[in-house]
Amino acid sequence: MRSGTAGRAAWRDTLANIIDNADTRAGRAFDVLLIAAIILSVLAVMLDSVGIYRARFGTALRTLEWLLTAVFTVEYVLRLIAAPTPRRYALSFFGLVDLFSILPAYIALAVPGAQFLLILRVLRLLRIFRIFKLVRYLSEASVLTLALRASLAKITVFLAVVLTLVVVIGTLMYVIEGPQYGFTSIPTSIYWAVVTLTTVGYGDIAPKTPVGKALASLAMILGYGIIAVPTGIVTVGLAQAQANRRADRLCPRCGLDRHETDARYCRRCAQALPETDIGTAAPGGAPS
Amino acid sequence: MRSGTAGRAAWRDTLANIIDNADTRAGRAFDVLLIAAIILSVLAVMLDSVGIYRARFGTALRTLEWLLTAVFTVEYVLRLIAAPTPRRYALSFFGLVDLFSILPAYIALAVPGAQFLLILRVLRLLRIFRIFKLVRYLSEASVLTLALRASLAKITVFLAVVLTLVVVIGTLMYVIEGPQYGFTSIPTSIYWAVVTLTTVGYGDIAPKTPVGKALASLAMILGYGIIAVPTGIVTVGLAQAQANRRADRLCPRCGLDRHETDARYCRRCAQALPETDIGTAAPGGAPS
Amino acid sequence: MRSGTAGRAAWRDTLANIIDNADTRAGRAFDVLLIAAIILSVLAVMLDSVGIYRARFGTALRTLEWLLTAVFTVEYVLRLIAAPTPRRYALSFFGLVDLFSILPAYIALAVPGAQFLLILRVLRLLRIFRIFKLVRYLSEASVLTLALRASLAKITVFLAVVLTLVVVIGTLMYVIEGPQYGFTSIPTSIYWAVVTLTTVGYGDIAPKTPVGKALASLAMILGYGIIAVPTGIVTVGLAQAQANRRADRLCPRCGLDRHETDARYCRRCAQALPETDIGTAAPGGAPS
Amino acid sequence: MRSGTAGRAAWRDTLANIIDNADTRAGRAFDVLLIAAIILSVLAVMLDSVGIYRARFGTALRTLEWLLTAVFTVEYVLRLIAAPTPRRYALSFFGLVDLFSILPAYIALAVPGAQFLLILRVLRLLRIFRIFKLVRYLSEASVLTLALRASLAKITVFLAVVLTLVVVIGTLMYVIEGPQYGFTSIPTSIYWAVVTLTTVGYGDIAPKTPVGKALASLAMILGYGIIAVPTGIVTVGLAQAQANRRADRLCPRCGLDRHETDARYCRRCAQALPETDIGTAAPGGAPS
Repeated sequence: MRSGTAGRAAWRDTLANIIDNADTRAGRAFDVLLIAAIILSVLAVMLDSVGIYRARFGTALRTLEWLLTAVFTVEYVLRLIAAPTPRRYALSFFGLVDLFSILPAYIALAVPGAQFLLILRVLRLLRIFRIFKLVRYLSEASVLTLALRASLAKITVFLAVVLTLVVVIGTLMYVIEGPQYGFTSIPTSIYWAVVTLTTVGYGDIAPKTPVGKALASLAMILGYGIIAVPTGIVTVGLAQAQANRRADRLCPRCGLDRHETDARYCRRCAQALPETDIGTAAPGGAPS
Repeated sequence: MRSGTAGRAAWRDTLANIIDNADTRAGRAFDVLLIAAIILSVLAVMLDSVGIYRARFGTALRTLEWLLTAVFTVEYVLRLIAAPTPRRYALSFFGLVDLFSILPAYIALAVPGAQFLLILRVLRLLRIFRIFKLVRYLSEASVLTLALRASLAKITVFLAVVLTLVVVIGTLMYVIEGPQYGFTSIPTSIYWAVVTLTTVGYGDIAPKTPVGKALASLAMILGYGIIAVPTGIVTVGLAQAQANRRADRLCPRCGLDRHETDARYCRRCAQALPETDIGTAAPGGAPS
Repeated sequence: MRSGTAGRAAWRDTLANIIDNADTRAGRAFDVLLIAAIILSVLAVMLDSVGIYRARFGTALRTLEWLLTAVFTVEYVLRLIAAPTPRRYALSFFGLVDLFSILPAYIALAVPGAQFLLILRVLRLLRIFRIFKLVRYLSEASVLTLALRASLAKITVFLAVVLTLVVVIGTLMYVIEGPQYGFTSIPTSIYWAVVTLTTVGYGDIAPKTPVGKALASLAMILGYGIIAVPTGIVTVGLAQAQANRRADRLCPRCGLDRHETDARYCRRCAQALPETDIGTAAPGGAPS
Repeated sequence: MRSGTAGRAAWRDTLANIIDNADTRAGRAFDVLLIAAIILSVLAVMLDSVGIYRARFGTALRTLEWLLTAVFTVEYVLRLIAAPTPRRYALSFFGLVDLFSILPAYIALAVPGAQFLLILRVLRLLRIFRIFKLVRYLSEASVLTLALRASLAKITVFLAVVLTLVVVIGTLMYVIEGPQYGFTSIPTSIYWAVVTLTTVGYGDIAPKTPVGKALASLAMILGYGIIAVPTGIVTVGLAQAQANRRADRLCPRCGLDRHETDARYCRRCAQALPETDIGTAAPGGAPS
């Protein structure tokens, strides 16, 4: 970070402190203001899409959107400047979200209706986790992330099976029911199969023939049952991730990990273990 | 509790005994009568809302409602008097429920239709847990409560992600489908997204364009799959809360906890453990 | 069982053997024939309800129904005779099912349409578990039954909360939307609340006002989320019931139970344990 | 494999290498080309079913289908030749899928419309698992397969109960609501019961009478709740299958299995254990 012009570096450090650090007072104030602006902006876009409000407050809402777009543009530039490596910020998840939350306003100058995409600003609200110190839930080592990553392969298999089922069932229904009962094409029938297998069931397309109803019943029971599989996968993954967090309980002498939360000595070399802050505060935990 | 006038204190104690203690005969009779009155009242409000019954029994139903409102008003005052600290009762969950179950009747004198809110009396039925000794399921230390509290942070993250998804998917559909296919505004589209992602699927609004159907299919599969996450969270939380109940099995000599339910001696110091009433009655449990 | 007339007793024993014992050849043949008759009967009732089949095969179907009713009546009487205590059989679950599977035919002589209740014969198909030796899944000690019983109290609490929610949400919607949008009465609104909270979502009644849609969205997210609670309860219950089955592994000397499935010696007194047939056949299980 | 004519055997081995081995370069290229052809074919069938595309590109699409059918026919014959035992391949799952992915084209010469069944080619995409080395998820010993097999009996019981419920509830609704409200026959009512119990809820048939709505509400709450049972079953099954994988950690001296993933020595005889590749890479795993 030590750049040639020390003065500019200090200015950049202060900026980075305000923008990126939720622990200082200035940083916290900045975050709160930012979130207020985002919510205001999202509400403005929402109201702008409702006929009666557009008719009445249209100009005011549009002005507000432009004002906030200007504010967010300045903020984006400041973030680029404050970042240690601007390129890395620009390509990060939040960097792209920040960009997409200002671009639609400019695009709307050419393509009318694009301004509604400003609502993507809602993604910026995910920054709220930072304020509430919830960032650990999203962090690399978090239980949720670990569990989902460990289950990824199993979930991929599950999704592949579901997609294949949906294509096969959809096509069979197209052949059985046909265009006269609303199954106008195979893609439409596949859409129906998704609606059915996921138990959403709009009812905009529904089987009319006895054979179609029988096949649909099968598909529903299938869809009703197979939800158990991803649920089981995620649950087991979560339980294991939670268990692995005990791996943090490391013996400082021999390095053995995964000690029980109530262990006070290493189970291999009898070294006293450091305190743990996870687990429940057990009553009577200060014994003998 | 020892007030100046001992006579009045005794009277209050008897009252409190009847109203708040489900173990005495008088208290039990009071509870049963109260629940009968609540059910009667809720049924009266329900029937009063059905056209044909209002036409026929309107006056009788209205009379019954007023009668029961009078009874409940007296009961509320008695509870206030019997409570050790009336203010604390008035602000407790059940205190507020008791208040809200009499207020609508009086409000309805000014605002017609408000009397239907009398149905909030149904919340008073939750007192039924007390009679069936089910109160431990709601108690501070209960497994369900512990599990839900332990999972609260994870569930917050989950809800935040779902809400963000719903706003983003809703807006995209508004841009793709537009007002001509029922997606009349962004709030309406968000409502559709909630209906779809939760797999409710009314079908009052449904995508008509191929691109809209493709995005809707994605949303459905997403909604179908992510239900696995809160389920996994609650399951793991419940399993841990249940496991932590074993923490109550404490060695009276060395204080070690979390003994297996079939353990009769402390696993560290061989002290005999007190009996446990949780766990299953194991066959052959009286050996050697 | 030793009755006065030994000859009649022998005859009853043979009868009981055929009717109640799926292990003898005669008993097995009887069960297979019975199930064929039940399926035939259920199919006849189903077809009889379909307009075009009733018009064409009405008389044949009705004759078949009467024939099978006669057969089942005789069977019911035989079961009564064969049972050690007829009264106990008559009041048992299957005894009542057997009765209800013949009564509607006779009732239909007075009340037309009642013969469709003959379809309750389908409940008799549950006897099929006996043939496939699946009876242990329904037996007193089975894992599923144990799990559900252990979870019963928690599930009761859950159901009470869901019912209260449904009444409260339904009434609020009745007040908000009112009869002009299909919420014609509180019972109807409660029906809508059930349809919504359980994520069924017919769409025959759906909110029209913005406030109604907002409340409905809340109800949907609630319904989508709280399904996690019973799922967690049943899962944890099942896991515990399965764990408790290890309690069957009892040390024949000291009576200690709950031995690991791979244990060959008692973990307390080193007594050799009897073989287990549950658990997985572990590779290399015959060592040292 | 050593056939009489060594030259022909070598030719067959090369062929088998290309067709069946995803690890050689030629085999990998073959797989990628095959999958591209399958996707192309599936897309062609889909587009052929959409009116506007059939009108415009009908001849081209039909030509493509025939071309790919020819290619797949040649491939099928090659697979038959390359297989060690052609009969076994022909009757295997993928053998049948391969056959069904060419037959409909020929059948369509006699029966118009049959060519849409060509979409069954999508099942061939399941071969994609082979390329991504995902085959272990489908393998005999995989955790998912083990879990589902272990849960099969419990799931059978569950399905039998659901089917019985559906027949009983459907018939009761037929008797209660009758043909005038859309419940035109018992099979139709059973279809409605499936739609309701699985929480799909099309809304094409919905109860109109108060009694019908009450019964439907019961069915919905039942359906909403019992999904917890298969979920619990699969979760517990998965957890056990995962636990049993530890059974692979066998002591080479005494044969004891089920060692913890962090164990380096046998817990019975202190023999050093072989490395494990499952489990998480524990920090500080190379100590003392």
